[in-house]
Amino acid sequence: MNVDGHHYRTIWIDETDRTIVRTIDQRKLPHSFEIVSLRTVEECADAIRSMVMRGAGAIGAAAAYGMYLAAMNAPPGSFPAAFEDDLRRSARLLMDTRPTAKNLEWAIRRQMEVLVGPGAPSSPEERVETACRTACAMADENAEEGRMIGRHGMTLIEELSRSKGGAPVHILTHCNAGWLAFVDYGSALAPIYAAHDRGLDIHVWVDETRPRNQGARLTTWELGKHGVPNDLIVDNAGGHLMQHGQVDMVIVGSDRTTVTGDVANKIGTYLKALAARDNGVPFYVALPSSTFDWELTDGVAQIPIEERQPEEVRIMAGRPIDSDGVVRERSQRFLICPEQATARNFAFDVTPARLITALITERGVCPASREGILGLFPERAGGMGATADGGGTGRAHGR
Amino acid sequence: MNVDGHHYRTIWIDETDRTIVRTIDQRKLPHSFEIVSLRTVEECADAIRSMVMRGAGAIGAAAAYGMYLAAMNAPPGSFPAAFEDDLRRSARLLMDTRPTAKNLEWAIRRQMEVLVGPGAPSSPEERVETACRTACAMADENAEEGRMIGRHGMTLIEELSRSKGGAPVHILTHCNAGWLAFVDYGSALAPIYAAHDRGLDIHVWVDETRPRNQGARLTTWELGKHGVPNDLIVDNAGGHLMQHGQVDMVIVGSDRTTVTGDVANKIGTYLKALAARDNGVPFYVALPSSTFDWELTDGVAQIPIEERQPEEVRIMAGRPIDSDGVVRERSQRFLICPEQATARNFAFDVTPARLITALITERGVCPASREGILGLFPERAGGMGATADGGGTGRAHGR
Repeated sequence: MNVDGHHYRTIWIDETDRTIVRTIDQRKLPHSFEIVSLRTVEECADAIRSMVMRGAGAIGAAAAYGMYLAAMNAPPGSFPAAFEDDLRRSARLLMDTRPTAKNLEWAIRRQMEVLVGPGAPSSPEERVETACRTACAMADENAEEGRMIGRHGMTLIEELSRSKGGAPVHILTHCNAGWLAFVDYGSALAPIYAAHDRGLDIHVWVDETRPRNQGARLTTWELGKHGVPNDLIVDNAGGHLMQHGQVDMVIVGSDRTTVTGDVANKIGTYLKALAARDNGVPFYVALPSSTFDWELTDGVAQIPIEERQPEEVRIMAGRPIDSDGVVRERSQRFLICPEQATARNFAFDVTPARLITALITERGVCPASREGILGLFPERAGGMGATADGGGTGRAHGR
Repeated sequence: MNVDGHHYRTIWIDETDRTIVRTIDQRKLPHSFEIVSLRTVEECADAIRSMVMRGAGAIGAAAAYGMYLAAMNAPPGSFPAAFEDDLRRSARLLMDTRPTAKNLEWAIRRQMEVLVGPGAPSSPEERVETACRTACAMADENAEEGRMIGRHGMTLIEELSRSKGGAPVHILTHCNAGWLAFVDYGSALAPIYAAHDRGLDIHVWVDETRPRNQGARLTTWELGKHGVPNDLIVDNAGGHLMQHGQVDMVIVGSDRTTVTGDVANKIGTYLKALAARDNGVPFYVALPSSTFDWELTDGVAQIPIEERQPEEVRIMAGRPIDSDGVVRERSQRFLICPEQATARNFAFDVTPARLITALITERGVCPASREGILGLFPERAGGMGATADGGGTGRAHGR
């Protein structure tokens, strides 16, 4: 996407020095636009953990590039044993950064298959080249998936616009599932960009998305740069807006999706899904198929939910405003509660499939159900998810 | 309640200079505890509007004291015509400060009845004395109602504690309906204080309550001062906690309650009620009867929802943290979104009666229905609310 006239992806290999991976530091947005360099898999893991880049697709791509950095820095001696052991250690390091996101695991597995699997090349140099090629291919696919999600989702917005006689379509979104959350285009925001580019009259309600304010910081910034009309609201406001007919549809992203259509997404998504159901507002989840966990059938019981540092709740960041009203350039951290106050910080929640109108994937729109999903991805019909509780045997899940 | 060993109410008449009303500046909490002085009805209206004091009961009491300041400063000449005109102007000024809260209107009406009604005293001096006596009586009643709500609500917590075999009872609350929101004791927090004082093992999940963070700033402060175990969470987290059995009950307050049991409370309350219903968690609303609007029968259609300044969403306050981690004493404002971002700021939402397990009032616990409410307040059975859609005639409400 464009930032002040330049085309950017969220992560890429430096053109002049191909040992460096570059990424946008999303922690600094919207107050400053900074590019950071990653030279080792450890730096890459730190960047994922501290959310330099975040969002389902972007951390998948980051992990793929991280495995490239790992391969490049792996000890070439006593090949392949030490080399492969080192890659396995790097894979675990990356896997442990964010427990909920499926794309992370998906990307690491794909790299491991080509790097230490049966068909892996016979020299360290070739394996580094393979890791590079795979990471770049995955980034390209990620961008292309976003483009296709945009195309499929746009038809839903177009229908609503037609049914409203061209009056503005009001779309609510939670967190940031825009191009910053992917390599390009995004998931939830991709249909919005496509609809806007087609000239449809749309307006977006942006949930600020506490505690890390991805909506307030990133989605408003993305939509603003693209010229899409939007208003920032607190996470508490969506229900009221829906009660008063001010929301025509909700589109959110997903960090992990069960084969039965349950969706783990940013904490608070479930509350918006409940409000949408209570008010008859369609609730869509946009996701590339890499977020599917084909082995899970009960999202609430089975998807691990990351608990992060309480400081993310107690402390916020922003640009200080002087007593004369001038907004300072440099962002700073602020304590927003009593010093003694304790906090808990859960990063995701699970929206059960029963609350979801449909999923928007790179292959098209489908019901949030096993049948709907496998209808679009028939090659997965024999997967573990299908067997686990298929055939009437069921599987008991503790809560 | 006690603040560092001193007993405070939220608002009172200065003992040595009875022309001054004093109140705690809640905008400064929890970072500093400051008492401000109000000398005129204009100062009082400004304080209500800018939320120096806030919360259903506290703004009712503030309006009652505001009418006392109005009476004291009303022109004594050409009594009673000019005096009464001035009081009517003051009543309108106070009434316009916060459109959603019912207690405000209730308190102003009660003062107007004794100050310009048929039985009003015959001299300006006596009327000022009447205004003073009425304001103080209303404050006393407000505190006593809180105490009784605490007693009735405590039995509900006690039952839960017994059914859990004494294991901690986890209570979620939204916004601040503690003693700071009233004159003393509070509504939603009153049963929590009573249960804690009785030695029950309880733990409170405190919703931070964006945009003004009454939970993060005030409820954590109140509970901390009283020694009640609590954890601050973002407003997005409650649904996840309920899905995982981490919430045994929800208690919130109310700013206006229809005779049919619909509740207008801080924005976001409705979302928690939906999650409670979806997970079988009991959802209670604690309120003194002064929040009832006996004439309204459909909260979503009829209760006016205040829209406040977008700056409350875009800008937050907190104590800056230096680069070496030291938290500075003085609180500051900071911008949390792009400078160009626009925002909307709705202050309340309406939770329909169907989502409410029961109401906790000063007279006891009752179902959130006309029958339940009028069972506790039979003297209201002939009120307008009862006639409006009683007798099968119904009343159509636009949305």
